[in-house]
Amino acid sequence: MTDDIKDENSELSRRDLLTRTGTGAVLAGSLAAAGGAAVLSSTPAAAAGSFEVKPGELDEYYGFWSSGQAGELRIIGVPSMRELMRVPVFNRESATGWGVTNESKKIMTENLLPDTKEFLAMNGMDNYQNGDLHHPHMSFTDGTYDGRYLFMNDKANTRVARVRVDIMKCDKMIEIPNASDIHGLRPQKFPRTGYVFANGEHRVPLDNDGTNMDKVEDYVAIFTAIDGDTMEIAWQVMVDGNLDNVDADYQGRYAISSCYNSEGATNLAGMMENEMDHAVVFDLARIEAAVAEGKYIERNGVKIVDGRKAANLGVTVYIPIPNSPHGVNSSPDGKYVMINGKLSPTVSIIEYDKIEAVFQGAEPRSCVVGEPELGLGPLHTAFDGKGVAFTTLFLDSQMVKWDIDKAIKAYSGDDVDPIIAKVDVAYQPGHNHTSMGETKEADGNWLISLNKFSKDRFLNVGPLKPENDQLIDISGNNFEVVHDGPTFAEPHDCIIVHRSKVNPLSIYSRSDPIFADAIAQAKADGVNLEEAADVIRDGNKVRVYMHSIAPTFSLEEFTVKEGDEVTVYVTNMDDVDDLTHGFTLGNHGVCFEVGPHATASQTFIASRPGVHWFYCQWFCHALHMEMRGRMLVEPK
Amino acid sequence: MTDDIKDENSELSRRDLLTRTGTGAVLAGSLAAAGGAAVLSSTPAAAAGSFEVKPGELDEYYGFWSSGQAGELRIIGVPSMRELMRVPVFNRESATGWGVTNESKKIMTENLLPDTKEFLAMNGMDNYQNGDLHHPHMSFTDGTYDGRYLFMNDKANTRVARVRVDIMKCDKMIEIPNASDIHGLRPQKFPRTGYVFANGEHRVPLDNDGTNMDKVEDYVAIFTAIDGDTMEIAWQVMVDGNLDNVDADYQGRYAISSCYNSEGATNLAGMMENEMDHAVVFDLARIEAAVAEGKYIERNGVKIVDGRKAANLGVTVYIPIPNSPHGVNSSPDGKYVMINGKLSPTVSIIEYDKIEAVFQGAEPRSCVVGEPELGLGPLHTAFDGKGVAFTTLFLDSQMVKWDIDKAIKAYSGDDVDPIIAKVDVAYQPGHNHTSMGETKEADGNWLISLNKFSKDRFLNVGPLKPENDQLIDISGNNFEVVHDGPTFAEPHDCIIVHRSKVNPLSIYSRSDPIFADAIAQAKADGVNLEEAADVIRDGNKVRVYMHSIAPTFSLEEFTVKEGDEVTVYVTNMDDVDDLTHGFTLGNHGVCFEVGPHATASQTFIASRPGVHWFYCQWFCHALHMEMRGRMLVEPK
Repeated sequence: MTDDIKDENSELSRRDLLTRTGTGAVLAGSLAAAGGAAVLSSTPAAAAGSFEVKPGELDEYYGFWSSGQAGELRIIGVPSMRELMRVPVFNRESATGWGVTNESKKIMTENLLPDTKEFLAMNGMDNYQNGDLHHPHMSFTDGTYDGRYLFMNDKANTRVARVRVDIMKCDKMIEIPNASDIHGLRPQKFPRTGYVFANGEHRVPLDNDGTNMDKVEDYVAIFTAIDGDTMEIAWQVMVDGNLDNVDADYQGRYAISSCYNSEGATNLAGMMENEMDHAVVFDLARIEAAVAEGKYIERNGVKIVDGRKAANLGVTVYIPIPNSPHGVNSSPDGKYVMINGKLSPTVSIIEYDKIEAVFQGAEPRSCVVGEPELGLGPLHTAFDGKGVAFTTLFLDSQMVKWDIDKAIKAYSGDDVDPIIAKVDVAYQPGHNHTSMGETKEADGNWLISLNKFSKDRFLNVGPLKPENDQLIDISGNNFEVVHDGPTFAEPHDCIIVHRSKVNPLSIYSRSDPIFADAIAQAKADGVNLEEAADVIRDGNKVRVYMHSIAPTFSLEEFTVKEGDEVTVYVTNMDDVDDLTHGFTLGNHGVCFEVGPHATASQTFIASRPGVHWFYCQWFCHALHMEMRGRMLVEPK
Repeated sequence: MTDDIKDENSELSRRDLLTRTGTGAVLAGSLAAAGGAAVLSSTPAAAAGSFEVKPGELDEYYGFWSSGQAGELRIIGVPSMRELMRVPVFNRESATGWGVTNESKKIMTENLLPDTKEFLAMNGMDNYQNGDLHHPHMSFTDGTYDGRYLFMNDKANTRVARVRVDIMKCDKMIEIPNASDIHGLRPQKFPRTGYVFANGEHRVPLDNDGTNMDKVEDYVAIFTAIDGDTMEIAWQVMVDGNLDNVDADYQGRYAISSCYNSEGATNLAGMMENEMDHAVVFDLARIEAAVAEGKYIERNGVKIVDGRKAANLGVTVYIPIPNSPHGVNSSPDGKYVMINGKLSPTVSIIEYDKIEAVFQGAEPRSCVVGEPELGLGPLHTAFDGKGVAFTTLFLDSQMVKWDIDKAIKAYSGDDVDPIIAKVDVAYQPGHNHTSMGETKEADGNWLISLNKFSKDRFLNVGPLKPENDQLIDISGNNFEVVHDGPTFAEPHDCIIVHRSKVNPLSIYSRSDPIFADAIAQAKADGVNLEEAADVIRDGNKVRVYMHSIAPTFSLEEFTVKEGDEVTVYVTNMDDVDDLTHGFTLGNHGVCFEVGPHATASQTFIASRPGVHWFYCQWFCHALHMEMRGRMLVEPK
């Protein structure tokens, strides 16, 4: 079987996948008619932009990439598609000590729910060590990126995190109560962020204590609005069905989420039953008014407004959408939002200005102004800012380029074909994204197709293959794949931000709040971190303070007693660009990054009598390997 | 200060670093004379090979990259420099569940020393979660790569690991007793691997129990020979000084290690004291004979031969080498080994055929046949297989191309300049490597410079900058940097293996030993893994067996009781290329990869009553998001 697959050409491999996997064959059959509607398949051979960025030149865009179940944020240069940095978020990272330093542990655990802390303790963990980071989005001001923060979800353990763009490190992480498994996430675009919207994908009992597990019809999905400045939860809304993806408008009035399980089912067959599922629109002002009027229940300290149809509070409307919609994407002109059909070959175009009428009683589908048939498995849509949209077709393994105005005209009866062109991608695309495409400054230069399978596109690296992020030139009339980019699990989603929006620091401020606790502890111990070479004993707790200037630590050795709880604080006093130090203590699982002018610390029990070397693991100097010293542990 | 650095051009930035950092200024001054010897600086403008690999084309080489303190192995396509796969080894990895699945935990912990297990338990850990992976090398047969295994060190926690090339997963990991902090690592090249040699870098007391910490002069460094087939330790050798890098010859007679701390000092000043340090040669047959004759001591079950000069056993020779040598590199013709001077501007060329005489009493430096002055900070040397060598100059931020024969002639008095050309790299290179360059099949096509600093070469991503792996075309007469490759910490070392040597599987064998324990447990439970949909209760232990075929798990739900110890086994029955599944259990820190035809499992305590969803996190199908089910936890 393996050899058979290997020898097939790529076209056969893709079709082959459809026929061999589960319901894929059924889907392909039932949707085949729709595929016929999209006929203008082409791969323009026009001169395309090059992805090449020559040695010493800089990329024009920052790509912020999620990593799915790898749990980290990635910074990718666009168009070179080079990984510029990994930012650990929900994962445990060896090099930086993310998840074990006192500074990162505080960020990761201070907002865990009491129930979660109990679970972790019972499982011998002080924190989760995995995450499923799907959707990274930057904070907005007035409809475009403002370079302050990046926000992102964790589907695996129901969390939302924030990364500070000035230092490109996670500074806040919260667990979302009441909701289950945060999937879709987007920030408010106007007037500013403001709210960060987060979808609890899976329906569970509101009071999920094991007493009501059989009443599936009472399960709820929860929509959460987080204050992006404080990272506190503003309010939640209970909905019918489930919540998949979400986007915000450009007017600051609405957020809108897709639902693929309006059935409220708990298995595959049930979730596919309805011909029509829906998108649910959240009216922010009406929700805020309901909260102000006390029309909420409270659970785990959070106010929850009932947005289900039966509650009739008027804070939501449900717009029927064909068959298990997935992606939700607002157009940069602010007029429309595209709901991508997934099991329907269509994208439903909703006009934002027609939604208020629905809130006031108009027929829900009256706000749908277009519904082009684009091909099989439309998942997400991106924009060039000039009236053209690009939609990923998962089952067809294609990207379709189409004209929004023509799609609207066709829906009202005109005999026009909105489809401009299609291009093959390899293979099975999920999210896509254009440069600045989710802002009012969409510039139509580059399109990314985040493909779930790479199969034969790269050297065989064993049973686990990379995904494939393809770069597509869409400048001018171009529409051509110019680069295949292999990525480790999983290129779930990305944004592409012009470099003019992003201005990080190179040296930490010595008053950065990330290490405020270390500063406070040192002060209490009478130690000046910037000049420290001190060992403070406090019962069986020992605090070791040192600073580093390449190639030396200020302490060549320190002595503790077997069984001491030791905290090592290192302050990097090199103020040279790119001169990061590290502190690794051999055979103690201790290893962390210390950026220029930062302080970092880790705590451990010194249970091993004898001589143990510590060393700098971030290459810093010709005498880097000599940058080391001894911890002497006296036996009991 | 930050702005000042930003505005400097790159040449100034590099020089600037020297003057601002610690002893750098002193070094630059004291070694400046040597720098003057290397005058032929050039950047050829001849037409160079392109790094571009067009969409759908394959790279010619597999690059196996270490990641330093990130603890993983990376597979990079060369020349495209794209990351094709991350292989978690010493780190904890979120997506694959490496470090938490039962299968990976067994590999990571079964060979830990009892003392380490105690330490970890006292620190609330079941395993180390970090590593410092410096040197990845493939197994050899007859002087070239044989595609069986990759071996690699962990400096942080004194371990050696092996990766199976057929599945590109770590299958063995051992902790090295007696030694401290494994640095240099190389496999035997001839007749085959055979031994894997591992250097304990740091000197510690032989019995490191805290009773003898002050007797610094009695500290020892330990050289270890591991059987690469069984991953058991064959023997160890105690040496004078410390052990830095190592290489093996092409005759199967010797391994040779560099020592930068012949002083046995414990601080920077002490380690720099001697004008001459040394390389130590291990004679494999003589060591094996000593072991056979009982000339060893035994510690922690390992036979240790005393290779110190004073012991006079004749198993080692010490060859004086100027000032803190670092890299050790055998030339592909099998004749020479280069010892790179680091604080000396020289590389010392040792002729293998002259070493036996030294064992028989000849003057130790009589085997040195060349010692060219190449520039400031020579760290490592690579080869084109045609008599040309390339050496990284850390302080000069250059790669120097030189002629080995001319260097030897110059040493014997001929008036020839071995230096052919120099090229600037950006910045401060450590290791370098050529395509197939550490084998007898070195092909002279590509050279990699692994640079420790990137500074201004990429978009600013905050205080932590990427490293910079530069690709240099050395084909024909070319010598030009053609690509800058940013990498996350730390591009410590790499090898470049022609794709003809590497042939991984795409589908697991159902009898793969990686999941043998799961097969045995299922058999004991009367469960057939390939068709499983079973829940087996065994007291308060519950084993949940399911298989997966996209887009379904064989169990839509399972029920356990609060407090149960639950093990979930998932077997992926899709036999389609690239169709990996995953199993994530929401809010339980459970997340793991299941490759095509593999079985994987994870164990946890189900302490949270209520409904919890599990889902497939490896995108597998149009209905991937519907591939989920419920764990129902009944309250106590």
